[in-house]
Amino acid sequence: GQVRFQGPAIAASKGAAAVVIRSVGTDHHRMPHTGQTNFAERSAAIPAAALSVPDAENLARMLERGKPVVMHLVVTPRSVGEQLSGNVVAEVPGTDPDAGIVLVGGHLDSWDLGTGAIDDAAGVAITAAAARHLLDLPERPRRTIRVVWWGSEEVGGFGSKDYFARHKQENVVLVGESDFGADRVWRLRTGFAAADKGLGDRLAAALAPLGIVSAAGTPEGGADVEQWMGAGVAAFDLNQDGTRYFDLHHTADDTLDKIDKEQLRQNVAAWATTLWIAANGSGRIARTKE
Amino acid sequence: GQVRFQGPAIAASKGAAAVVIRSVGTDHHRMPHTGQTNFAERSAAIPAAALSVPDAENLARMLERGKPVVMHLVVTPRSVGEQLSGNVVAEVPGTDPDAGIVLVGGHLDSWDLGTGAIDDAAGVAITAAAARHLLDLPERPRRTIRVVWWGSEEVGGFGSKDYFARHKQENVVLVGESDFGADRVWRLRTGFAAADKGLGDRLAAALAPLGIVSAAGTPEGGADVEQWMGAGVAAFDLNQDGTRYFDLHHTADDTLDKIDKEQLRQNVAAWATTLWIAANGSGRIARTKE
Repeated sequence: GQVRFQGPAIAASKGAAAVVIRSVGTDHHRMPHTGQTNFAERSAAIPAAALSVPDAENLARMLERGKPVVMHLVVTPRSVGEQLSGNVVAEVPGTDPDAGIVLVGGHLDSWDLGTGAIDDAAGVAITAAAARHLLDLPERPRRTIRVVWWGSEEVGGFGSKDYFARHKQENVVLVGESDFGADRVWRLRTGFAAADKGLGDRLAAALAPLGIVSAAGTPEGGADVEQWMGAGVAAFDLNQDGTRYFDLHHTADDTLDKIDKEQLRQNVAAWATTLWIAANGSGRIARTKE
Repeated sequence: GQVRFQGPAIAASKGAAAVVIRSVGTDHHRMPHTGQTNFAERSAAIPAAALSVPDAENLARMLERGKPVVMHLVVTPRSVGEQLSGNVVAEVPGTDPDAGIVLVGGHLDSWDLGTGAIDDAAGVAITAAAARHLLDLPERPRRTIRVVWWGSEEVGGFGSKDYFARHKQENVVLVGESDFGADRVWRLRTGFAAADKGLGDRLAAALAPLGIVSAAGTPEGGADVEQWMGAGVAAFDLNQDGTRYFDLHHTADDTLDKIDKEQLRQNVAAWATTLWIAANGSGRIARTKE
């Protein structure tokens, strides 16, 4: 992703008039892989585009001939200025207001070429469906489970940054995000410290029947919960199979037909299990290396 | 393919203002599968379009809601009138002018959305490369091998029809076409009559080491050699693996990166083998059921 994120700014600093990259996706279809590009300041921005892999390979063959190649760029993106976005928040109320909050979710917006089925309608659906299953239980969890559908993730995480700024005084004890499609969860990572090893072990045991392994290492959380992690809050990963994620991500191919129902259901089961177990505790959850 | 070929004409006959079909390809990408549509007369033509499978599925979901759905069609194809096309012809000259001609090839033109790598640059490359291998041998075949790259196949087989009209008096004894991509050849079909069973057996034995099975049944030949088959000339099929052919055929994804070099080489080996053996005979080759 760094080619796309940083390449245009570096090219501009060296005097480039425009930059065209080979798509950083993993497919061989004619749809370019796109996404955010960062410039230190807007005035330094130059036109930046991505060619699909077949087109980039064709261009490479043309260049190998050693003769001049002229590209005519028609790049249509434009800035629409600041727009209103929003976060959508729902809760499964806990029985103990002092037990802390488990904060999870996904993001509402999507990159514009696709419909956002895997990025990130899947994530909002998985986390909301998991919370809904807990609402349907005869008993309530001890901790409150809060599901947030963050707005404006793709263009800079503005929804989650604003959410953190407004809520950082609240007693959030654990965060997690689903933002990697809807293919099956294969790995749990928690990175809890020794004081909370029991919680990690209970999660691992409960998730194993769903084909999920438990691994050491620091969870990555997600773009919309990184502010909380930066403030020391514990996190968990339910890592999904990403084999085909970057075949589809940020392309016109991010559509509903790419969601496999059986794998989606496994995700919901994993999240419901995790939320229930994590919500039946109290107090802070300790992270490794704090 | 009949939905695409005949559907618009049937819809027009029933008063339709336009027709939109679900792409008849086998992929789930956002690129529609396109191709020829037939109307009895040009004046009866109505706008006809294909939606990609993901978009067609989305439309179906919208229709299932039971509320009116309005489609705004922007369909840009237009007739450019009659244009000049051409056939390209090359020969491996045989030693015996009376032994007959083996006529093979592919077609030069392609459907417009892709670059035509699999349909049918592959076919012209495979047949030409096979003939080239024979030219490189120290001895000549007995029969002449003629390779034709037919023009204007996609819009109605005008190149091959014209070629047949001009050459039908020549002593063509066997025809074959490569027009199904570049994936491996898995089956030989000849349908030769008993008098030429020996030739069929020699071909089968020589192709077996390339992983090619020999099967009974009538060969289909190809769109550009059907005139000859209709006139009673024997034909052969070197059937290719078509598993992914209609994922790519007549879409923007028909590009060079889809050609697998190893499988392309197996095709060339199969064609060179077939041409050499078939060209070392004389006289007419008898077909079953004549």
